Amino acid sequence: MIISNPINVRYLTNINAEGTLLITRKENIYITDSRYMEAVNSVLTIDDGIMVYDAKNLSKDDYENFFMFCNSVGFEENYVTYANYKEYVHKYKIENIIETEKMIEAHRVIKDVDEIEKIKKACQITDSCFSHLLSFIKKGMTEKQIEAEIEQYFKLHGADGVAFEPIVASGVHSSMPHAIPTDKKIESGDVITIDLGCKYQGYCSDMTRTIFMDYISEDVKKIYDLVLKNQLSTQNELKDGGNIKIITKLVENNFEFNSHMLIHALGHGVGLTLHEGPILSSRSNQILKENMVVTNEPGIYLPRKFGVRIEDTVLITKNGCINLTNSEKNYIIIGSQS
Amino acid sequence: MIISNPINVRYLTNINAEGTLLITRKENIYITDSRYMEAVNSVLTIDDGIMVYDAKNLSKDDYENFFMFCNSVGFEENYVTYANYKEYVHKYKIENIIETEKMIEAHRVIKDVDEIEKIKKACQITDSCFSHLLSFIKKGMTEKQIEAEIEQYFKLHGADGVAFEPIVASGVHSSMPHAIPTDKKIESGDVITIDLGCKYQGYCSDMTRTIFMDYISEDVKKIYDLVLKNQLSTQNELKDGGNIKIITKLVENNFEFNSHMLIHALGHGVGLTLHEGPILSSRSNQILKENMVVTNEPGIYLPRKFGVRIEDTVLITKNGCINLTNSEKNYIIIGSQS
Repeated sequence: MIISNPINVRYLTNINAEGTLLITRKENIYITDSRYMEAVNSVLTIDDGIMVYDAKNLSKDDYENFFMFCNSVGFEENYVTYANYKEYVHKYKIENIIETEKMIEAHRVIKDVDEIEKIKKACQITDSCFSHLLSFIKKGMTEKQIEAEIEQYFKLHGADGVAFEPIVASGVHSSMPHAIPTDKKIESGDVITIDLGCKYQGYCSDMTRTIFMDYISEDVKKIYDLVLKNQLSTQNELKDGGNIKIITKLVENNFEFNSHMLIHALGHGVGLTLHEGPILSSRSNQILKENMVVTNEPGIYLPRKFGVRIEDTVLITKNGCINLTNSEKNYIIIGSQS
Repeated sequence: MIISNPINVRYLTNINAEGTLLITRKENIYITDSRYMEAVNSVLTIDDGIMVYDAKNLSKDDYENFFMFCNSVGFEENYVTYANYKEYVHKYKIENIIETEKMIEAHRVIKDVDEIEKIKKACQITDSCFSHLLSFIKKGMTEKQIEAEIEQYFKLHGADGVAFEPIVASGVHSSMPHAIPTDKKIESGDVITIDLGCKYQGYCSDMTRTIFMDYISEDVKKIYDLVLKNQLSTQNELKDGGNIKIITKLVENNFEFNSHMLIHALGHGVGLTLHEGPILSSRSNQILKENMVVTNEPGIYLPRKFGVRIEDTVLITKNGCINLTNSEKNYIIIGSQS
């Protein structure tokens, strides 16, 4: 098999670089270039059983020999571009190349103890960042300033950095689920949606809270209550054996019953990447399993008005789920005291 | 043609979202999902002549109709995965799908006035960030702290954010061209390589300087002088009509003559992405053209000792080149005065 996706390479080997991992009948090979040779060799030990080559030193014959006695060679059809696919067939002289249908990703969906510990740590840093923000955010500050503070906080409190560009969406901006922070200043009465997460030793966290500057209007309260009610009822449904389609449908139906819509997935797996399996969608046929880590993130967005999303990262267990992010979910009103 | 690479979509339409652009005989179509509908519609005007659809509302027939009267349909074989390629052929019922060989990327290599202004602005912010760092960096600070300061500086001084995770590599870490910042503290005598760049309205800058804490040893000076000499001689060669292979060979040969090696490319194009055409490599057959924007970044790395890289982003002109990053390139020694 040819493993090209650097996340899968990291999952299997701990190597965090640019290169290609080959699993052949004879040996395991990692092909990289001179920029990464020193870093790669500092991660691997003899026990890893991986030969490291600098691509510069490999000949046409070397490439053709790697898979010489293999009947078929797998590749990652969901990562490899069409151009690279053609290149592989030619370069490695592969007669029978086969799709591996997210083979490694299927393993990644279930987390082991080590992985869970890293995600937990990422979630703890995220909670403490959010708690820091509650005293940091002041009227007149821009969304971008808050975003910059989140990024700096993560760097300085043990995280590798952000897991994604944080979303800080205030006032009408909160009506866009994927708003990009702007120079808009925080004003009295603003709904502020903050979606943040960091990486800890490669593993991600993901949390959203919607908070309020000075006061909450009755309109907003109604939406907030509806979102929170659904977030909490989903939390009760998330457990080993849970049917993702049904769990998502429950929220979709409850939103529709109240004349709103769930316009995005209810959640997604979290691990070495921010978005991975399983997707919590009503089109899914998957069943939740112990030691999956997923988000629970219902949201309602009223165009040109405001939006509310509440999101936790949770660990699926035999009889329920454990919230790995634990920040307050009741109304959080900041500013009015100061 | 099906345009899937979001960078190419942004280049052609200014849309910054997830979706697919279709250029058909009848019309231009952008297919996205509900998360991005509001943002996309706020960027486009009637004059753009682009129909926007929510994928949710498209039927099997709609997809099959888009390219109904097209003899062949182009796709981006260097971006589209093998799995998506198969999906396109099926979903759009394409009889003759053809590779477009970086067609749009070829346009992107030559920058227009607007693009150059944005890159210039990104470079200016980068220079001012570097100048800020010279007074900010103190002994005992960690590489990560400096990295966090760079990220925050960019956010708060008009940039969209970083163009890439900044490299802050001190002491032996500087021997790895792609070092990731760690908790290592800056010590007296450290060689510190700082590779930083930001995005301004989507456009990138890229600059590296190697500076020194308290003093420079004679060993380091020798390497620094050799790198700088080659960076300056390259600067003289970069112009419209310049032969990339020869320009790179000159540096490789001079390094080898001095018992060192250039282990990475001499530079790369910069634009909406940090790394784009042309690559300045001795394997290239390309000729430089007016209004290309490229980096000039020779470096020498002595494993387990130290490394030196000096990099500017430059604009190719008819008779030479203009440095868009302009930070000091003579020895910069910090710390000793304070």
